[in-house]
Amino acid sequence: MWTLYYAPETISLATAIALEEAGQPYDAVHLSIAARDHHRPDYLALNPKGRVPTLVTPKGALTETPAILVYIARAIPAAGLAPVEDAFQMARIEECLSYIAATLHVAHAHRMRGHRWVDDPAAIAAMQAKVPETVTAAFRHVEETYLAGDFVIGDSFTVADAHLFTVSRWVQADGVDPAVVPKVMAHRQRMARRPAVARALDRLAAPA
Amino acid sequence: MWTLYYAPETISLATAIALEEAGQPYDAVHLSIAARDHHRPDYLALNPKGRVPTLVTPKGALTETPAILVYIARAIPAAGLAPVEDAFQMARIEECLSYIAATLHVAHAHRMRGHRWVDDPAAIAAMQAKVPETVTAAFRHVEETYLAGDFVIGDSFTVADAHLFTVSRWVQADGVDPAVVPKVMAHRQRMARRPAVARALDRLAAPA
Repeated sequence: MWTLYYAPETISLATAIALEEAGQPYDAVHLSIAARDHHRPDYLALNPKGRVPTLVTPKGALTETPAILVYIARAIPAAGLAPVEDAFQMARIEECLSYIAATLHVAHAHRMRGHRWVDDPAAIAAMQAKVPETVTAAFRHVEETYLAGDFVIGDSFTVADAHLFTVSRWVQADGVDPAVVPKVMAHRQRMARRPAVARALDRLAAPA
Repeated sequence: MWTLYYAPETISLATAIALEEAGQPYDAVHLSIAARDHHRPDYLALNPKGRVPTLVTPKGALTETPAILVYIARAIPAAGLAPVEDAFQMARIEECLSYIAATLHVAHAHRMRGHRWVDDPAAIAAMQAKVPETVTAAFRHVEETYLAGDFVIGDSFTVADAHLFTVSRWVQADGVDPAVVPKVMAHRQRMARRPAVARALDRLAAPA
């Protein structure tokens, strides 16, 4: 069995979408960030970073969303979640995953997780003030570089779509004007209509 | 021909090491960050992010170090730069690349590139003050999670070693006490003795 350790409203959703699109059964284990479940010793033994997600596979545990998403695509090739036999197209997908993780998601994190990089409360507030600018720039880059058609890369769903959809749900909260990234917003709407995406959202909703 | 657009003393070095280890000939095009070469229109046409590196391959241009490194390993399998047929081991390598790019390198960037995330000079200074703590934590994670033997993952060189070596050259400047990450420092020494690493350092040295 595969097990996804997740927290609601985090990047964990991208992994759940990929698993649902792959038709891969998995247990979903809820962690409450507010209750600091992600810093409990049993979770830290699995993921010493104390972050989400962690995906436990039959071969071992994996962290880092880009690595997890590519692994799901390669481990379950019949699902067709990426052109795994085309090294250059895979590199384009990995380029996008890396940009989302290391630039877009990092820019976003300066709104709620500024304490990662600074202690002074005034500096945290100053960081938050710049988030709309930095996150807008990142989404504009995605808009202008990828999304030539209905999908991030190529003419069918890949794991990059799961990643982009997950972060694009934060557009408004990050202070990005949706009108400046119309392709990103249209992609979000298309993705939300996919049954696998709806199932992932249901699985990872916060417990009542 | 392959062409690497680089700036000295940046993450570009990781790509040069991978190319040298692969025995892949390439042109190296120097960009001066101080002269803002990376924001010239001809470079932005190639890489609209205005960052380094960009690797131009016969199939097109690639950015983002994790994607570039994995691509070199997959495009030149005879070089043996990664266990490309083992999806789980590749995922472990990609996990490490992603952590270095999205956490370790980002923590480091708060020392010299704080303006990416904040405008207030006092906040930039506050960010810089925390860099020794955050970068130390990131290197400690690498020390404790990877490097079971002489290499980041497994018992031979992979592209993850090129990535770690490149960022570990910044340890002292980032205010990390080398004594707390002895495996990282020993890895740096071992890597520096590899002929391909010496060639990459020579190729990417700042022009006289």
